[in-house]
Amino acid sequence: MNFPISAQDIEEAHDLIRPFIHRTPVLTSQSINDIAGCELYFKCENFQKIGAFKARGGLNALMSLPVADRKKGVVTHSSGNHAQAVALAAKLNDVPAYIVMPETAPEVKKKAVAGYGANITLCQPTQQSREEGAAKIQEETGASFISPYNDYSVITGQATAAKELIEDLPGLDALMTPVGGGGLLAGSALSAHYFAPEMTVYAGEPEGAKDTYLSMEAGEIVRLENPSSIADGLLATMGDKNFAIIKELVKEVFLVTDEEIVAAMKLVWERMKIIIEPSCAVPVAALLKNKEAFAGQKVGIILTGGNVDLGKLPF
Amino acid sequence: MNFPISAQDIEEAHDLIRPFIHRTPVLTSQSINDIAGCELYFKCENFQKIGAFKARGGLNALMSLPVADRKKGVVTHSSGNHAQAVALAAKLNDVPAYIVMPETAPEVKKKAVAGYGANITLCQPTQQSREEGAAKIQEETGASFISPYNDYSVITGQATAAKELIEDLPGLDALMTPVGGGGLLAGSALSAHYFAPEMTVYAGEPEGAKDTYLSMEAGEIVRLENPSSIADGLLATMGDKNFAIIKELVKEVFLVTDEEIVAAMKLVWERMKIIIEPSCAVPVAALLKNKEAFAGQKVGIILTGGNVDLGKLPF
Repeated sequence: MNFPISAQDIEEAHDLIRPFIHRTPVLTSQSINDIAGCELYFKCENFQKIGAFKARGGLNALMSLPVADRKKGVVTHSSGNHAQAVALAAKLNDVPAYIVMPETAPEVKKKAVAGYGANITLCQPTQQSREEGAAKIQEETGASFISPYNDYSVITGQATAAKELIEDLPGLDALMTPVGGGGLLAGSALSAHYFAPEMTVYAGEPEGAKDTYLSMEAGEIVRLENPSSIADGLLATMGDKNFAIIKELVKEVFLVTDEEIVAAMKLVWERMKIIIEPSCAVPVAALLKNKEAFAGQKVGIILTGGNVDLGKLPF
Repeated sequence: MNFPISAQDIEEAHDLIRPFIHRTPVLTSQSINDIAGCELYFKCENFQKIGAFKARGGLNALMSLPVADRKKGVVTHSSGNHAQAVALAAKLNDVPAYIVMPETAPEVKKKAVAGYGANITLCQPTQQSREEGAAKIQEETGASFISPYNDYSVITGQATAAKELIEDLPGLDALMTPVGGGGLLAGSALSAHYFAPEMTVYAGEPEGAKDTYLSMEAGEIVRLENPSSIADGLLATMGDKNFAIIKELVKEVFLVTDEEIVAAMKLVWERMKIIIEPSCAVPVAALLKNKEAFAGQKVGIILTGGNVDLGKLPF
């Protein structure tokens, strides 16, 4: 099958954004390996600029825009990390940024976005309110819309995290990421397809936002009306561009409860001494819930982000 | 001046314990550098075995004992990290461990010590009660006492953390550690003396446990009756073996309040996405409080540990 993003596209995106991102480390934990019964390799995108992998997609999307368009600015809607990513990319490229954020987004994320000099508009925490808010700004300013995930340049940017992991650790049996809108999962699946074709790709998804799980079953995108999970970064609905890639290249989506997410988050904090956000703990929880599928394997997990409100921890 | 620990002693200790410890990474943070006005290099001993540098001293002390003595076991008293260090070292060498812990020690530390199979005896949270508890066990079992800090083999083991930092980052202007009993500070000062003699060594100490600060002023060890600080790992009184080294090689001890410690801890969690315990935040707080002393310098900070009770965070 031909995909709309080629290996060369991912390589070029990596070259484009490399000066602005961290090549994040891969960490291991003997005690978590003992619990999981397999060898885990954690790609620490919680140490990425803005504290999350989304810096990659935001930068690639903005830097792929025609220079004439950039001047009018960029606009997006996001519960947090994509907002910071676009705000950072705009600041680095001296471009105005307009960010629509649900009023329920963590304070720490709102503060960070404001810190990059972006203009923030708050909206209701629904997909519709987010999209309407962004469309209105787009009309008024002529700014280019940067989708949080349903965009080939965003997907291509996100793909660079798995590409680095594959370069650092050839021979992984499996790769697991969380899935929300599907940008990271689609990009990771493409990098696996091109650069480590023998590696199997899985996703973890919250029970309360299981639109990808249902979509994979149905073979077409299923929308959930009111997704709800402590993993606030994974509430967005799967994009059609992402799904076309994911349904071909991802083997399985594992569901986890909020309780399992919090337990996995706490385990990583306690054993690895690193801070991950609830969305980031989802694939860890999914793996621990399905140990038999990974017994003895070498498994890469992309730790997606570490932006949590320290005043509002779930434990 | 001749010190009781030579460069060769530190090198031999490093060779002895190297198979059992992590060579921990050195991390940087642009945003903390911007706040501090200098270049900071964080030696992440929070990622060390047992979550703290004390694994180094515990291993070196136990492995330096005559084999015949080891069989009767080892005993120590500790508020937590040294307890885990001795318990781990004992487990690795198949030796019984007896640990006296103040009943106020964090639950997470008590659990970890028990997890290594050590025998725990709880005591009052005073120096006297700790020492009496350990002496009693020593008498009953014939176990060898491993001091948390006032012991040359412990100091030599702790010295290996600064040695690694110096090897990884030649040319540091300054090095800062926290100070409690003085094992890490004395060891670090010796490594600086031998391996980076141009580097200046400083310490951070809690206001509520400022016995080292007062001892440096007085030129002799001053005991505080009831030291108190959120930095629970730094309440021990300076040891005489440590002080003889520290008073010669450490330039200054900076005092910080508990409020400053918590703010520094939160800053590191938020910006670096890594977990450090209050004691570990003390040199960070001390540096941020005394920026002018470090303006433009390259400063190494040993992040000593990351063992916190996640259910009892100070923010």
